[in-house]
Amino acid sequence: MRLSRYFLPVLKETPSEAQIASHRLMLRAGMIKQSSAGIYSWLPLGYKVLRRIEQIVHEEQQRAGHIPMLMPTLQSADLWRESGRYDAYGPEMLRIRDRQDRDLLYGPTNEEMITDIFRSHVSSYRDLPLTLYHIQWKFRDEIRPRFGVMRGREFLMKDGYNFDLTREDALHAYNRHLVSYLRSYERMGLQAIPMRAESGPIGGDDTHEFLVLAETGESEVFYDSEITDLKFGGRRIDYDSVEECQAVMEEFTSRYARTDDTHEESAFETQVPEERRRRARGIEVGQIFYFGTKYSEPMGATVVDPEGNRVPVHMGSHGIGVSRLLGAIIEANHDDNGIIWPEGVTPFHVGIVNLKQGDEAADLACDQIYNAVVEAGLEPLYHDGDDRAGAKFATMDLIGLPWRITVGPRGLKNGVVELTSRRTGESEELAPDQAVTKLAQIYAGKL
Amino acid sequence: MRLSRYFLPVLKETPSEAQIASHRLMLRAGMIKQSSAGIYSWLPLGYKVLRRIEQIVHEEQQRAGHIPMLMPTLQSADLWRESGRYDAYGPEMLRIRDRQDRDLLYGPTNEEMITDIFRSHVSSYRDLPLTLYHIQWKFRDEIRPRFGVMRGREFLMKDGYNFDLTREDALHAYNRHLVSYLRSYERMGLQAIPMRAESGPIGGDDTHEFLVLAETGESEVFYDSEITDLKFGGRRIDYDSVEECQAVMEEFTSRYARTDDTHEESAFETQVPEERRRRARGIEVGQIFYFGTKYSEPMGATVVDPEGNRVPVHMGSHGIGVSRLLGAIIEANHDDNGIIWPEGVTPFHVGIVNLKQGDEAADLACDQIYNAVVEAGLEPLYHDGDDRAGAKFATMDLIGLPWRITVGPRGLKNGVVELTSRRTGESEELAPDQAVTKLAQIYAGKL
Repeated sequence: MRLSRYFLPVLKETPSEAQIASHRLMLRAGMIKQSSAGIYSWLPLGYKVLRRIEQIVHEEQQRAGHIPMLMPTLQSADLWRESGRYDAYGPEMLRIRDRQDRDLLYGPTNEEMITDIFRSHVSSYRDLPLTLYHIQWKFRDEIRPRFGVMRGREFLMKDGYNFDLTREDALHAYNRHLVSYLRSYERMGLQAIPMRAESGPIGGDDTHEFLVLAETGESEVFYDSEITDLKFGGRRIDYDSVEECQAVMEEFTSRYARTDDTHEESAFETQVPEERRRRARGIEVGQIFYFGTKYSEPMGATVVDPEGNRVPVHMGSHGIGVSRLLGAIIEANHDDNGIIWPEGVTPFHVGIVNLKQGDEAADLACDQIYNAVVEAGLEPLYHDGDDRAGAKFATMDLIGLPWRITVGPRGLKNGVVELTSRRTGESEELAPDQAVTKLAQIYAGKL
Repeated sequence: MRLSRYFLPVLKETPSEAQIASHRLMLRAGMIKQSSAGIYSWLPLGYKVLRRIEQIVHEEQQRAGHIPMLMPTLQSADLWRESGRYDAYGPEMLRIRDRQDRDLLYGPTNEEMITDIFRSHVSSYRDLPLTLYHIQWKFRDEIRPRFGVMRGREFLMKDGYNFDLTREDALHAYNRHLVSYLRSYERMGLQAIPMRAESGPIGGDDTHEFLVLAETGESEVFYDSEITDLKFGGRRIDYDSVEECQAVMEEFTSRYARTDDTHEESAFETQVPEERRRRARGIEVGQIFYFGTKYSEPMGATVVDPEGNRVPVHMGSHGIGVSRLLGAIIEANHDDNGIIWPEGVTPFHVGIVNLKQGDEAADLACDQIYNAVVEAGLEPLYHDGDDRAGAKFATMDLIGLPWRITVGPRGLKNGVVELTSRRTGESEELAPDQAVTKLAQIYAGKL
């Protein structure tokens, strides 16, 4: 993409309403624009990152054998009356009346609706196990929306639901989700720690929240420092193997790690040697639940088991906050000059800066590099404006592309351009084709 | 995907509430489930087609130079008060009050919101031309939702908005949209005819509606039969060329083609020889509008022009009904046995039917074909259930994959499997690897 043909409205001033870095930087980098309290438009750059995150979530969910679908944003109140949550949910639920005076609501989550779909179509244990998920906009009418997309009212969430014959099968689904979430976050360049948490209005006893450590996090967290050394990494896993998934779950959850809701100071002190005890703040980016028959019983989601008995299915639900992840990633990856995107979610793979727009050799070299990058299957953003070099660098630093190729008449005389890492600031002089080859290797995970 | 691991709840009975073929077939093929009047869940098979259509729209919009972004579903009523449409829109607008007693609405379209984004960030003619689009859920509170996703209340729409300095530039954007729409529909296997129409609540004088001819269409249409011979086909176009886009526009719109809103019987009779006059019914699948300064003037969306004057921008908006396209495609592509997907939008590229599940040779051959299809970059759906052959064929015919590979012990003894076209019913015996090669060629457009 050439910047002259893009829509990237960066702001010079720091917006006064933004209290935290991610909110400030998303506004300054022209990624979002607030349209009402807690409701945002995703400008082109923000939308691109949102789609990259969504794509990682889709890939990892489908790798785990979970099936994508899509439920609508508006739901009938009657479904929620069946589960008893319509009255229980409180003022965060946006209640709506249509022209026929029917009660609707903007879904904050989908346990009831998916249970209704299940009971309409499945009646035998032979159709289990089944895990369905979707990525859809949700609404929670927060009394005090803030921190940009981190605590918005309209937000994008992945929520998945498993249906199993037994508690054991459902716990395998729970472990599968834990593994797929670890993989997803790592691909986004994030370390998200599973911590024992409270279940809140979803219900159930078994639940882990995934938290990204950050000073601006809304939760206080307590953990054994050994946990931050754990990596899922490139290991292969058979998602059908109960043992393999269970082993990962144990590896990542056996050490003390809790949010303030479940923290017990005495257990913390007994289980963790003093030098490994950490108190910090964290941003919640996902949560998994096993809640058994909490919805299947009242809503009659049953199957006939191998003995011919009709039994309620065991369920769980599993969420990733897709839109809030942008905020969390930026909180964990920025400096004074702007955002530093991890390679896995960057909106463009490389920025091309022409130091002397209009110089024949520089323009030609930029065009050739642009085409070679596209040829390599990557997306460049070419700053082809008339701004001076310093302003171009500032824009590139602000929007945070992990790599920059700088092209100028002087370097070209020596046959080189500069490849610069946004994270380290280090530059390397390379022939133009070598710079592109190196980029391709970096994104293929070979460097 | 193996059917045993998928969620494809096909129905044996024809649902009584469905009046038209597409609605009936989408329910029977397990593509959708109604959750409230005019509000549907997209079950996995339906969701896959929805995503394919969305992907084609994205690709063709970006090819035309239009920039993707995403606006929220809920909008502030204040924006609509500025344009004067809040009171004018009528009861189809779903009006909502949040917990702070602020008036919101579920967006039926986005002229106001995009104009607000534009005026906040753009102030010079140098940033023009600019076309932004998004694909987002909309809501129109139809008094009588029907025909499944064809006339639902919550529906997915692509809407794009152009901002230009002059009327001429805006008409070029209009023509660009017309070309990109022709390409999009053709890739979906649809002939959609641009017809002169009325602008309704969007406004403006220049507007064309795109109609797919179908007996169940809601509009009566009148056209010169020569129009149905026009194809955009594989021709290349330079979207920056005013002349090229204008020429396509003239080619596709110079003949008489109007909906009942704009039809004039006398003009029809004068302009079209009797043997070429056609009266038929059509399904509206898109509409493009040029409306000049209708929104930019009241909302103050102005730029400084080259002479230093502040002038309101010329705008247009351009919609494609993404979710309703599924209905339109099925109306135009089905028979008594079920759906017949065009290759461009099929949920899976090929169905594999094992005539004797459990037979060692047949199971092995199916697995090998499955892997070879995946290897070729295509998605197979393998019917690996215990049903008898007839039932497997019926399911495959119902869900309408364009190609089927049938594998049985008898054929394998002769080294062949059967490749069958859903559309023609014709079968060909081929070695398994030849069948996969032929499929790959078909989808690469080489056969």
